[in-house]
Amino acid sequence: MYKIGIYGLGLIGGSIALALKKSLGSRIYGLDKFHQKEALELGLMDSVIEEKNLSEMDVIILATPVDSIPKVALQVLDACKQDALVFDVGSTKSKIAKAIKNHPKRGNYLLAHPIAGTEYSGPQAAFSTLFEGKINIICDVHETDESLLKRAKNIFNKLKMKTIEMNSTAHDKHIAYVSHLSHISSFMLGKTVLDLEENEKNIFQMAGSGFASTVRLAKSSPQTWTPIFVENKQNILIALEEYIDNLNDFKTILYRENKQKLKNILQKTNHIGLIIDKIEAQNG
Amino acid sequence: MYKIGIYGLGLIGGSIALALKKSLGSRIYGLDKFHQKEALELGLMDSVIEEKNLSEMDVIILATPVDSIPKVALQVLDACKQDALVFDVGSTKSKIAKAIKNHPKRGNYLLAHPIAGTEYSGPQAAFSTLFEGKINIICDVHETDESLLKRAKNIFNKLKMKTIEMNSTAHDKHIAYVSHLSHISSFMLGKTVLDLEENEKNIFQMAGSGFASTVRLAKSSPQTWTPIFVENKQNILIALEEYIDNLNDFKTILYRENKQKLKNILQKTNHIGLIIDKIEAQNG
Repeated sequence: MYKIGIYGLGLIGGSIALALKKSLGSRIYGLDKFHQKEALELGLMDSVIEEKNLSEMDVIILATPVDSIPKVALQVLDACKQDALVFDVGSTKSKIAKAIKNHPKRGNYLLAHPIAGTEYSGPQAAFSTLFEGKINIICDVHETDESLLKRAKNIFNKLKMKTIEMNSTAHDKHIAYVSHLSHISSFMLGKTVLDLEENEKNIFQMAGSGFASTVRLAKSSPQTWTPIFVENKQNILIALEEYIDNLNDFKTILYRENKQKLKNILQKTNHIGLIIDKIEAQNG
Repeated sequence: MYKIGIYGLGLIGGSIALALKKSLGSRIYGLDKFHQKEALELGLMDSVIEEKNLSEMDVIILATPVDSIPKVALQVLDACKQDALVFDVGSTKSKIAKAIKNHPKRGNYLLAHPIAGTEYSGPQAAFSTLFEGKINIICDVHETDESLLKRAKNIFNKLKMKTIEMNSTAHDKHIAYVSHLSHISSFMLGKTVLDLEENEKNIFQMAGSGFASTVRLAKSSPQTWTPIFVENKQNILIALEEYIDNLNDFKTILYRENKQKLKNILQKTNHIGLIIDKIEAQNG
């Protein structure tokens, strides 16, 4: 049985801990700068990772905020045993890839990104079935030792994820569109309406389920998302620019009351419905 | 028992028909330019409204696309009997209010907007419980005859809605923020990602449930929404401008990597969570 260490026992790290305790019966060693006590009390971890036991771990999982991962990754690679598997579950991959590129134990490391989460965060938000049926993206797999890659895939199977491969540059570009941009659009929609609410009370009684759905991601944790946005800044700025361009085009077409053009755009965009149905089927 | 006529038997009109047939046992007379046959087959209406029976209706409900309502409203007011109640369920109110302002039967008319819907449309999308627990906004109620207002409220009670009052100008301004803007943000997010998908296949396997939720409204009907956007153009342009300003501010803050400011904005916007919870509780 693997000895498993997890850095960061929030929604993601905590859910991995619960799932692996359940499926592998593993003892979880954990370390959490912010919620150590809570994670212990909730049973997300059994013991604390200490300098003296770090070298005993077979698998070390990094689930801390994404901007802290490069530093932790290097420290863990320095200290882990020769055949330990180290992987992170951060939402951006290129900067981590770059940080560990020349480490002598680069082969011990795997870049992973499980596409799973909720708008809640912290140890209390963790639950063991979070990953079931979800997509997991692993990047630059040729850089990871074959036997350790196999070990990682075994763990992802235990989490019941569907694993796909991609290079880290493509990952960061695409995830900017299908995840980071939707968080920003949601946050800024929430902000725009809250700004108005300051002067006009009770407009929210007018809001329906459509508004709630569109703005749901604005509940997401600032502690998690500020670093993600900054780490993937270059790709997000491009995606955001395109989104703003589309909104400005829409504004112009509406201003001119060009109904046919407006209808054509909405009609073409309706195609997203098929994609949503697929995503929802994929997420059970 | 009321004789009820409904113009437009799509999602909204059709659902009203089903709900009133169930709760009042009413015979529904209907007229639908686009889906007459389907509405008859699905049992949303029992007979067709004809010139000779229009004057027999006690209640006439207008649920056609919002840009057609002013014209239909005037025709129906001209033809209805002296004590008929006429109300519409369109998503914008000011232009309709203006169109009927000087009609001798203005007192027969009520401006209503049930905040209910799904991303689906047409007669097949209709279901009898659509309105249960939902908010219904009625506007400029002092312009409607007291006894007919009472009749309308009785009908809204049968639909199990919570009715609130507002003037039509305030309605159109606020609904631009809490409904129309979220539809546009969703449509343009869908468009931005679809544009990218044209060149980069299969990015959607990377999308999770958060993306699906944010982009869900982009499934909405172009036939319904093009006229809504155009009818409420003035308010939407202002709301859209503020949204784009917020996105541009976000872009600048991200470009400068001002993490503290970014975190503050996200934190402040998290407050929307409480509001979403209320909306979701309100919508059962």
